[in-house]
Amino acid sequence: MGKIIETQISVRYAETDQGGIVYNANYLIWFEVARGEFFWQQGLDYGKEVEGRGLFWPVTEAGLRYVAAAHYGEMVTVRAWVDECKSRSITIRYEVSRDGQTLCTGFTKHLNVDRSGRVVAIPQDLRDLMLG
Amino acid sequence: MGKIIETQISVRYAETDQGGIVYNANYLIWFEVARGEFFWQQGLDYGKEVEGRGLFWPVTEAGLRYVAAAHYGEMVTVRAWVDECKSRSITIRYEVSRDGQTLCTGFTKHLNVDRSGRVVAIPQDLRDLMLG
Amino acid sequence: MGKIIETQISVRYAETDQGGIVYNANYLIWFEVARGEFFWQQGLDYGKEVEGRGLFWPVTEAGLRYVAAAHYGEMVTVRAWVDECKSRSITIRYEVSRDGQTLCTGFTKHLNVDRSGRVVAIPQDLRDLMLG
Amino acid sequence: MGKIIETQISVRYAETDQGGIVYNANYLIWFEVARGEFFWQQGLDYGKEVEGRGLFWPVTEAGLRYVAAAHYGEMVTVRAWVDECKSRSITIRYEVSRDGQTLCTGFTKHLNVDRSGRVVAIPQDLRDLMLG
Repeated sequence: MGKIIETQISVRYAETDQGGIVYNANYLIWFEVARGEFFWQQGLDYGKEVEGRGLFWPVTEAGLRYVAAAHYGEMVTVRAWVDECKSRSITIRYEVSRDGQTLCTGFTKHLNVDRSGRVVAIPQDLRDLMLG
Repeated sequence: MGKIIETQISVRYAETDQGGIVYNANYLIWFEVARGEFFWQQGLDYGKEVEGRGLFWPVTEAGLRYVAAAHYGEMVTVRAWVDECKSRSITIRYEVSRDGQTLCTGFTKHLNVDRSGRVVAIPQDLRDLMLG
Repeated sequence: MGKIIETQISVRYAETDQGGIVYNANYLIWFEVARGEFFWQQGLDYGKEVEGRGLFWPVTEAGLRYVAAAHYGEMVTVRAWVDECKSRSITIRYEVSRDGQTLCTGFTKHLNVDRSGRVVAIPQDLRDLMLG
Repeated sequence: MGKIIETQISVRYAETDQGGIVYNANYLIWFEVARGEFFWQQGLDYGKEVEGRGLFWPVTEAGLRYVAAAHYGEMVTVRAWVDECKSRSITIRYEVSRDGQTLCTGFTKHLNVDRSGRVVAIPQDLRDLMLG
């Protein structure tokens, strides 16, 4: 397990549902926010350096375990780290917590595809940034 | 006022908030769904015939009046019609209702821009479809 | 595997992202739409008969495999069925497809909790509806 | 015009659409984030002090002018201030900008309603906080 990057997220009213808690799909969005921050702090600007050279890292698999609920106004922390970086795929893991209590854990797996949708090898410089 | 197109939308759980009602921003999404259906029923495939030829109709202005709340599981009707179609802009009006009761009214104004973001005249065939 | 319920969903512009495809988190929302329709067609009004008697079925686990992308304007079909119904939990499986091509498969697991958040047995009449 | 509160928002990938820009409805969500921050910085915890005493401030009217587009990864600033605070309603104004360039301006009007949906006077202490 490499470097862990933490992102703070303030829960939005729009993210709640009528059950009074954060709607389940929003955790995938939080994962993405944390992933973007992870990339950024590793020196990788996803928009410019991945999509900008005609590559995309679509999510090909995701898993989530919801342990406890988040609520409007709370500040949650999302930790993200690289779980696995193969030649053509990368798996990121996440943990959402509030004041040290785990709310949700999960992962997303990404394939490296080009504009035509073909799965290709992740450029070495991007792999280095991921694992750095 | 030209043709009015009606679209049925079943309220999603994800669209509610902790107040127990549909979150306000979702009405703009419903407007877009009704707008797409309006275009479609007028014979215009927005994705193919507008964006497909390098044009975009971004929203440049929007207004909403929220009269009564919508709730999870309800079936709402969104009526959409062209309010104004100028050479380079189009204004669509909307009314969201449930069982004849108005829930929300509003409008969106769109400019016709090309890939470079320049405002250009709406092609005559698209204008004809809008007003047809 | 019990009854399979199919729900048609027309892809919204709002559901796309700058990659030109449907954003990954929206599949969890589509799962929820299909789940609600599954409940409804089994004779269960989730809002009234579950939340209405002080019970909630929060998602405690979810998994998704993204096989192919969905795009704006496409009509997708979401099939939902009960995979497992234990005394206090229920697992629903989903398959999103377009014209017979699988786009995404997944599941959500739900615990039956009361207002205080305590996990309790699913009332027999609700279990019967799920498995009916 | 009273105090102006600024909120920084980092644009999420999920907030973009296939046009490559932030989807229009998300600005209403950003308005809400800025409104919550405004309340918070004025000493008002909306969840606790408004909803907590059985009051709700639903949006009854909203208007937006989209001037320029926001993109993934950009940091935008949302300024919020009270435009008008009557006995039973409050109007908040917003300006979204990036590096000093205005992207969107708008307002939301809110009525003060109780649990039964009846419009009632805003408690004086809340009015004082709004105007403070």
